[in-house]
Formats: sequence, C-alpha cells, structure tokens
Amino acid sequence: MGAASKLPNESKLSVKFYGSKKEALGNAVLHLTAVEISLDVDADRDGIVEKNNSNKASWKWGPNGHGAVLLVNCDSESYYKKRVDTEKEEISKVSDLKDMSRMILRTSGPTQLPEGYKLSLHITQTDAESVRVFIRCGPLDYPLVLNKEQLAAEVPYLGGNSELEFFVEGLRFPDKDFEGLVTISLSLLEPSDFPETPIFTDKVVFRVAPWIMTPNTLKPVEVFVCSTSDNYEFLKGIRKMVQSSGYKLKICHEYMNRGDRWMQDEIEFGYIDSPHQRFPVVLDSPRDGDLQEFPYEVLLGPDFGYVTRYAQAEEVSSLDSFGNLEVSPPVTVNGKNYPLGRIIIGVAFPTTAHGRNMTKVVQDFLWAQKVQEPIALYSDWLVVGHVDEFMTFVPAPDRKGFRLLLASPDAAYTVFTNLQNNGHGKAKLFQGKGEEISVNEILSNEEFRAENIYVQSCIDWNRDVLKKELGLDEDDIIDLPILFKVMAEENRAVAYYPDMVNMIVLGTNLGIPKPFGPQVNGSCALETEMRSLLEPLGLNCTFIDDFASYHKLLGEVHCGSNVLREPFAFKWWNLEM
Amino acid sequence: MGAASKLPNESKLSVKFYGSKKEALGNAVLHLTAVEISLDVDADRDGIVEKNNSNKASWKWGPNGHGAVLLVNCDSESYYKKRVDTEKEEISKVSDLKDMSRMILRTSGPTQLPEGYKLSLHITQTDAESVRVFIRCGPLDYPLVLNKEQLAAEVPYLGGNSELEFFVEGLRFPDKDFEGLVTISLSLLEPSDFPETPIFTDKVVFRVAPWIMTPNTLKPVEVFVCSTSDNYEFLKGIRKMVQSSGYKLKICHEYMNRGDRWMQDEIEFGYIDSPHQRFPVVLDSPRDGDLQEFPYEVLLGPDFGYVTRYAQAEEVSSLDSFGNLEVSPPVTVNGKNYPLGRIIIGVAFPTTAHGRNMTKVVQDFLWAQKVQEPIALYSDWLVVGHVDEFMTFVPAPDRKGFRLLLASPDAAYTVFTNLQNNGHGKAKLFQGKGEEISVNEILSNEEFRAENIYVQSCIDWNRDVLKKELGLDEDDIIDLPILFKVMAEENRAVAYYPDMVNMIVLGTNLGIPKPFGPQVNGSCALETEMRSLLEPLGLNCTFIDDFASYHKLLGEVHCGSNVLREPFAFKWWNLEM
Repeated sequence: MGAASKLPNESKLSVKFYGSKKEALGNAVLHLTAVEISLDVDADRDGIVEKNNSNKASWKWGPNGHGAVLLVNCDSESYYKKRVDTEKEEISKVSDLKDMSRMILRTSGPTQLPEGYKLSLHITQTDAESVRVFIRCGPLDYPLVLNKEQLAAEVPYLGGNSELEFFVEGLRFPDKDFEGLVTISLSLLEPSDFPETPIFTDKVVFRVAPWIMTPNTLKPVEVFVCSTSDNYEFLKGIRKMVQSSGYKLKICHEYMNRGDRWMQDEIEFGYIDSPHQRFPVVLDSPRDGDLQEFPYEVLLGPDFGYVTRYAQAEEVSSLDSFGNLEVSPPVTVNGKNYPLGRIIIGVAFPTTAHGRNMTKVVQDFLWAQKVQEPIALYSDWLVVGHVDEFMTFVPAPDRKGFRLLLASPDAAYTVFTNLQNNGHGKAKLFQGKGEEISVNEILSNEEFRAENIYVQSCIDWNRDVLKKELGLDEDDIIDLPILFKVMAEENRAVAYYPDMVNMIVLGTNLGIPKPFGPQVNGSCALETEMRSLLEPLGLNCTFIDDFASYHKLLGEVHCGSNVLREPFAFKWWNLEM
Repeated sequence: MGAASKLPNESKLSVKFYGSKKEALGNAVLHLTAVEISLDVDADRDGIVEKNNSNKASWKWGPNGHGAVLLVNCDSESYYKKRVDTEKEEISKVSDLKDMSRMILRTSGPTQLPEGYKLSLHITQTDAESVRVFIRCGPLDYPLVLNKEQLAAEVPYLGGNSELEFFVEGLRFPDKDFEGLVTISLSLLEPSDFPETPIFTDKVVFRVAPWIMTPNTLKPVEVFVCSTSDNYEFLKGIRKMVQSSGYKLKICHEYMNRGDRWMQDEIEFGYIDSPHQRFPVVLDSPRDGDLQEFPYEVLLGPDFGYVTRYAQAEEVSSLDSFGNLEVSPPVTVNGKNYPLGRIIIGVAFPTTAHGRNMTKVVQDFLWAQKVQEPIALYSDWLVVGHVDEFMTFVPAPDRKGFRLLLASPDAAYTVFTNLQNNGHGKAKLFQGKGEEISVNEILSNEEFRAENIYVQSCIDWNRDVLKKELGLDEDDIIDLPILFKVMAEENRAVAYYPDMVNMIVLGTNLGIPKPFGPQVNGSCALETEMRSLLEPLGLNCTFIDDFASYHKLLGEVHCGSNVLREPFAFKWWNLEM
C-alpha cells in the first residue's frame, strides 16, 4: 500500500486457487485498508507542530537535540476565585491553552475505520501524576481526555485527511522523584473475540520545563518592596532610584504584609520557558512569615505562575528564607558551560553537629531543575544565615561580564587603619544614630578584631568554593569593607554597620545600604571607598538609609526588596547536559 | 609561599612600623606555614589514584569524561556466616578492600600542623545512605571513619610528604531516589574561640556503578539448570550440549530448588564494573518461588554480588519473573548508540484496565541504571506473560551482529499449508506424546486459526516497537513457525507445541525446545524449517526434549535455564549520555 486509502477496503488482492490438475478450486479476495496515523508534537522546538518527526519519541539536550517541551500550568487564568490552573480539571478560559503544548493526531484514510477498529490515546499511571490531556471539540469546547483517573481514552477517527488537536498540560515540576519526562501514546486497536489488540502505537515524549532563576546581570522589569509604618525614608530612597532607572516599582502595603518587610525572603522570582510560551513563576518559600499571602494573593495571575514546597516534619529555619537563595551570572568552569549561571544557597558546615540547613524539599526541588546546578555555601556562621549577607554579583563591562562582591572584614580593617594613619582616628561612625564610635576605638578593640578574623575565615572558605565552582580569578572578585560582630549567645555573626554587600542591583545602578561610616572631610569614608571600588566599572552607587527600619532588625536593602527580571535569551533546552 | 613548609611557622614576614617623622615605632613578625592538601581519587579512570586531578570534584560521561567510580560492595567475602558485605560495618577480610575505591589524602608540610588546626573528612546526611569510608591504619587494620551515624571525623595529619589511604564503599545502587553521585569532602579547620572554621575544603565525587545485563551475544561462562525428579531427559540434553560447547554446567539440586525448575525466572545475571574491580551480580526477583534461597545461599560469595528489590504493598505477578527481563545486543537507533544494548521487559498494554505488570520497585531499579535504557513490551496477552515466550536474540556474522527471533503463527500456518499442499496433510504432530493431531486437523480448525490471528497481532505490535526502539530492519528479524492456543478462562495465550523461540543461546550453539512437529520423511518438519532458517547464519540447532517436564508446565528450555556470561569489553562510563 503506497498511500492511505480513500475508501474502506478500497484495495483488493484476488487469490485464485487451483487443484493439482490445474482445475479452478475457488477464489479469495483480500480487502485492504491503509490508514496513516501520526501523533505529532513540536519535537524540533520551533513553536510549530511538525508532521511525524522521527525523533518525537525521545528527548535530547543541546542545540542539535530534539524533543518537545511542556510547561507546568502554574499560573491562574483569572484573578476571580483564584486557583493555580493545574488544580482545575477543566479549561475555563481559552487563553489557558497558550500555557499548554499542542499535540496533533494526524490521520489520513477512508471516511471511517473498518468496523470495530478504534483509536486509543493513553498514558501510564506514573506519568498521569505529571500530565493531563484535553481535546479540542470546538472553538470553546475542550473536554478533558486523560488524567490520573482516566489513563486511556478512545479518540474519534475523523476520516479523510484530518487533524485532531490536543492540549497537553504539565502538572508538576521536575523533582527528586520526577526527572521531567512524560510519554503519551496513541494506539490503533483491532476488534477481537479476545482482548482488543493494538496493531500500531505511536509515541511522543515531552520534558517539563525547569524553573529558572534570574541573576543580577539580567535587565530588571519591576522592583518589589514593602511599605511599613516605619520605613518611609527607605521607601523614598528606593522609589527615587527605581524611578530614575526607569523601572516599575510595586509596593506591598501593610494590610498585605502585616509588618513583614522582608520581601527578599518570602519569594524568589524565576520563569519557565518553552518554544510556544514563557512566563514568570514565583517560588514561595516555606518560611511563611506574615508576607505569606503575598505571592499567591498578589503575584499569581494570568501568565504569572506560582510554585511552592512544603517542609514536612522538619523545622523551617532562617536558612529557608530566600535571601539565602541566589544565582550567579553565566559562567564557564573547567570548560563546562553554565549559560544560565549556577544557583547558590547557604547551608550548615557539614562538620558541625547541629547546624541549620535549608529544608530538604526545597533543596531537592532546586537540584532537580538541573539547568542551574546549585552550589552550597556555608552561611550558618551568620545569625540570620543568608548568603546575601556576604556576597552579591554586579554587572561589569569587561572580563566575564560581572564581578563577585564579597564582604571583607580585612578590607574594612585596611580602610580603618589607613584612616588612623592619616590622622582620622577620631572620626566617628554612626553619627546622629545615637551610638557613635571612633575609628580608634574600633581598632583598639582586640576582642572585636578576633571576631572579625573569625568572620573573614568563614568568608574566605566560601570565597575558595566560589572561585572553584564558578571558575573565577582573583580579579573577578571585589572585597568590600564590611565589619561583623559575633553575638555571644549563639556565637554567630551580624553586620556591625549597614552591610553594603546586601544591595539591590538595577542594571548599572546599585542601591547600597548607607553605612554611616567615619566622616572625613564631610563625607563618609566607607561610601568613598565603595565608589572608588565600583565606579570604575561604570556602576552608580546610591546609598539608601535603611538603618533603623532594616539594619537594626538584622536585614538591609537586599533583604527588603525583590526584583523581577527579564528571562535569559539563552534557551534552556539548548544546554549540553 | 611557593612550596610547602618543612617546619611550622618556617617563613617569616617582618613588618617594621614608623611614625610620621620616620621614627621606628615597632616591629611585627608574621609567621607563615604552607601546607599542601589534596584529597585524591581515580578521576581519570585508569585504575590509579592520580594527584589532584582538576576534575575530581565533578562527574562527566564519555570517553572524554572524568570522575571516579564506586562499586556497591554487594558480594560477600566469606561463605561462612554469609552476609552481603554492605551489611557489615567493619572490614573482616583484607580482600574486601578490592571491592572499594581507593582515596588518598596527600599532604605536604611540616611535621605538625600549627596548634589547634585539624583535618576533617565529611559527607552529607543524604550521601551517607550510599557510602561508607574506612581508613588504613596498618596492613590489617582498617577502622570505619564515616557512615550514617558519623558524618564527619578528624583524620590525622602525618607531616612531611605523606599519604593517608582511605577505602570508599558503595552501599546502594542508583534508584528512583538516587542518581548515583556521592561527594566526599576534606576540610582544614582553624581553631577559634568561635565555632571552628574551615579555611580550606577539597572535594571528590564518585558515581556508583550501575548493574549491567548481558545479552545472548556475549560469551557464556557457566550454565545453570535445576535437577528435579522428572527432568532427566532434559538434563541429559542440556549437559551434552553445554559440555560439547566447552562451558561449565552448574546443577541446582532438589534439596535447594524444592521442585522449582524455573532457573530463568528467579534470577537475572549481570555485573558491575569499575577501573579497579569487576564482578558478576545476581538480581534476585521478587517472584520468590521455591528457588528463592538459591541466589543468596549458592551464588552470593567472594566476587559474586547479590541485589534484590522487595515489592511493597503490591501483589507480585507472573510478570515479575525474569523470563520477562531480557536485554538486546548493542544497537544504534536514529544515530544514538546503545553499546550495552537495551533492557527489555513485558508489561500490560496500557489501555487495558486490569492488566498485570512488572512490580514498580523492579521497574524503577532497571530504569535508574540508565546505561541500558529499557523498552517495555506488551506481554500480558500470554498466560505466563514473559517476553521470552515470543522473542530472543541470536548472534549472526553479518548485519548488526545478531538477529531478533520472533514467534510467528503466520509463519507456522505457512509451513503447515505447504505441508498440506505437498501431500503431507495427514502427518501427525505430538507423535508418541499421546495426543497426536494431523496437519489437516490443525488447518481446518477455524477457532484455533482465529486465536492465532489474535496472537500474531499481539506479536506484531511488539515487532513494531522492537523495530523502532532497536533500530531494526525487516532483514534483522526471523519469524519462527510457532502456534499458540488461547485459554478460554482468561483469554490469554500459551504455546501450542514446544515454543522454539524459548531457547538457550551458547555462542553459535542453540538449545531449542524439541517441537514434536509433523513427521515428514522421517524427520520433523518444524525442526527442518528451523534449521533452514538458522543454519545459514552459522548456528547449530540442538533440539532438547522438554515436553513433559517443562512444556506441559507452561515453560521451555529458556525458562528452565540461565547463563552467566562474560561482561562487555565496552566500559559503561564511556557512554555518551
């Protein structure tokens, strides 16, 4: 059969039987029907469902790879009676189809299949936890076909050259127990007195898109901060900087934040991407402070997704706040490319018996996304315990396109010693903040110095790990003059003056905690030092007063803000894994 | 510091301080000690632990890849009070070290570290489920250092140029919740009034070797069969064939098999491989018939490993027998290489509501090994439900190096029709077996014909899947003339006469169930047909009478035997994944 049949039993093969003396015995006619069947997806990742791609049943990473992509439908088509779309078993708005992957059953053949033959679409029990399939019956009619209650369903055969359109919905992200691959099969079943038998099966494979974080080097879209009864000065500083930079500012008001100002800690912005659709997705921390409702109630909406993980039978610690979850810019390490950067989290140092950690379900989730292979730093030496207390990344026009900024007590002692040597030993820190102290007093405090030597050793260990894991040279790192204080009760550290590394990065504009450092010739020596370190890179430093409303509460500008950024131009499926 | 110090505080840096009028103020001396530390493994996979490989902290597949390999220590060093070695927390015999991966801590520096400094070896809680570390204290003294009760341990610093030797033991195979990678870290800790701080950490990564199956095309080492009260004829046939082929024969006697003759079904032979050690490992089926004790009691021993999976809260079905677990020879499919072949299992057809399946824990295990990506066929149409009832592979000198043999009712009807046409319609099957039937009688039974059309459709579906998943052409497949009978009670099929595809393959010698087909000119027409199909490939057919003792019990030669084979020359870590 060289082509599909136009009519059932259209082709005939006549067989004549003869006896041994060549006498005619009888005649048999074999009726043949040829049907072309192809279950199709966008396996070449160009946004179009091509016909019968020879690689549609497998998945391969890389620019020469193949295999279709599925999004977790984790946004909410409507704000009214809001729910994440994956929690609904029906399609309530046609716009929801954009978040699904099209799948087309192309058939070619007679008007009807021979009697009793039928088409069955099917998935396995395991895959049904990760995927749901709808069929297009009309422009506004998309009934559910497959889900975990219905693993196989007969689908109509339309006859002639026809296309049946399906929409495939991803239900969950890759995780420890789910690599991300799902298979959908279509079988032609033959009638039989015995169980129906498949005579042909076609298969397609999807990979669920990972959740991807966005580093400081990506263009900001919108800045998020909280308004509280006591943070007017801070808000004013942020607003001025954001507006002059030309980005949007979104303020979370007190009825929603209930006094919880730590916008960095409750959420992490990321996105999901496919050849046909892309949208931001907020990861909600199991921290669950008073800001807890914000990501679901305010952020979740049409084309804005939501995902969370619930810590089970484990205590959630301060290390579960997302000031402890950052991502590097793109790097190459020993020849291995990380074009989407690497995730960075803070954990207990493993030789410590009773350290605090980021909860396992969140760590498992982060590792399972695979495309931004995480690095675990040691952050448990800090009272709050977040990596953003000692590190950040800023864009740079040269070298790798960025610098790693690290808090450095050593650098601070150098600045203070120079001040003393230049006759500014009596210059005061914290002027007007009611707890002034001179450079000389700081330098003469041996206990304080010992604490900072300890802090420096903790940061240095992380510095080594970051150099190794991100492939950095010394010249890729800038040490910022910051001092810490070790709190006697728990032998853990906090920033002594506003922690300048805990900044907000908006393009080349940096919003830095105003350090209230020693006043020399009418200006702050720490601000001067920061400018001299960062301005040569084309960066603009804005110092924002967060002293009373953030610093004294053990956080700073970065902890109190969050930035939604544009996604990477690089497509994750082009990664070589 | 350009080199390691020979003495503590060996290098000194003198700093002189001057006042503003250049008067000497004082003098400070900085004492420096340089220590070289490297935790080393065989990251280049040549069997030798090289020094400080720059890639030792990551793992990459392929001939240009890197990363050390760990074996699950699943053999038992002694037969006496036998236990799998992983269940022992101590090393009882030095020979056990061969099954572990060497890891060396190389240090260079003064006799002692400066006071209070120490070295700590550590692993994470998660990795501790998969790995254990021993240290060499003397030629016969290897105490445990790390396990899941002890995640970090101080290790001695020996001074000078010294090497401390560790042995790393893998505890579990890759599985659904374990990708196979483990990390071991070594930190230099600095004394402090505060928590001890790491000032340097070195890391190494291992991947646990997967369990690998061996296809029929690999050279046999030993053949296993059971002796029962009623299988003398069968044993005689097998013994003759095995001995003339020059392989070893191992008979499992009745006190051990307790009448359970299905040697194929209780176990599957495979192996694990590393650059330093390799040994066979038997996978014990959750089937657990009366042969249940055999793999643990008889096979497990020095350099013979054992692994099993226990079905949980799921009923074990006939599909859990390992006649339903096979592996193809090496293939290339759409440009993708499978140099270790692909695993083949049988499952229910997914559109069936209440089919039988291979239990999930075994399927998960097989998929997690990764290097022989499994293919699921449809075998639930058979009463016994094993893939070896309708398919096998034999070596061939041409094409892909093998042929796929498939049972084919169509091929059988062709043979029988030709016999009838050539005047042998009265030739009898089952001669001397007390249930003789003629070719004419078989051909005239329309119900029987309908059953075989149904069986052919089930095999044809699998044929399509195998062609697609193994990249086979028509010429790679040989259809063997075999008829089936559908049992009315459950609408599932059994072989009508001895199922010739269910053969034992020993190099080019095939042990085939003697079919007792129609006698034509003093020889069996089915045997003649088999020879004409297989002998042109250089294969020798030996027909073994398994009629009473296997066929009547719904199994055949393959079900009743098992073959331990040599491993692949190809190393699994050279796979491109």
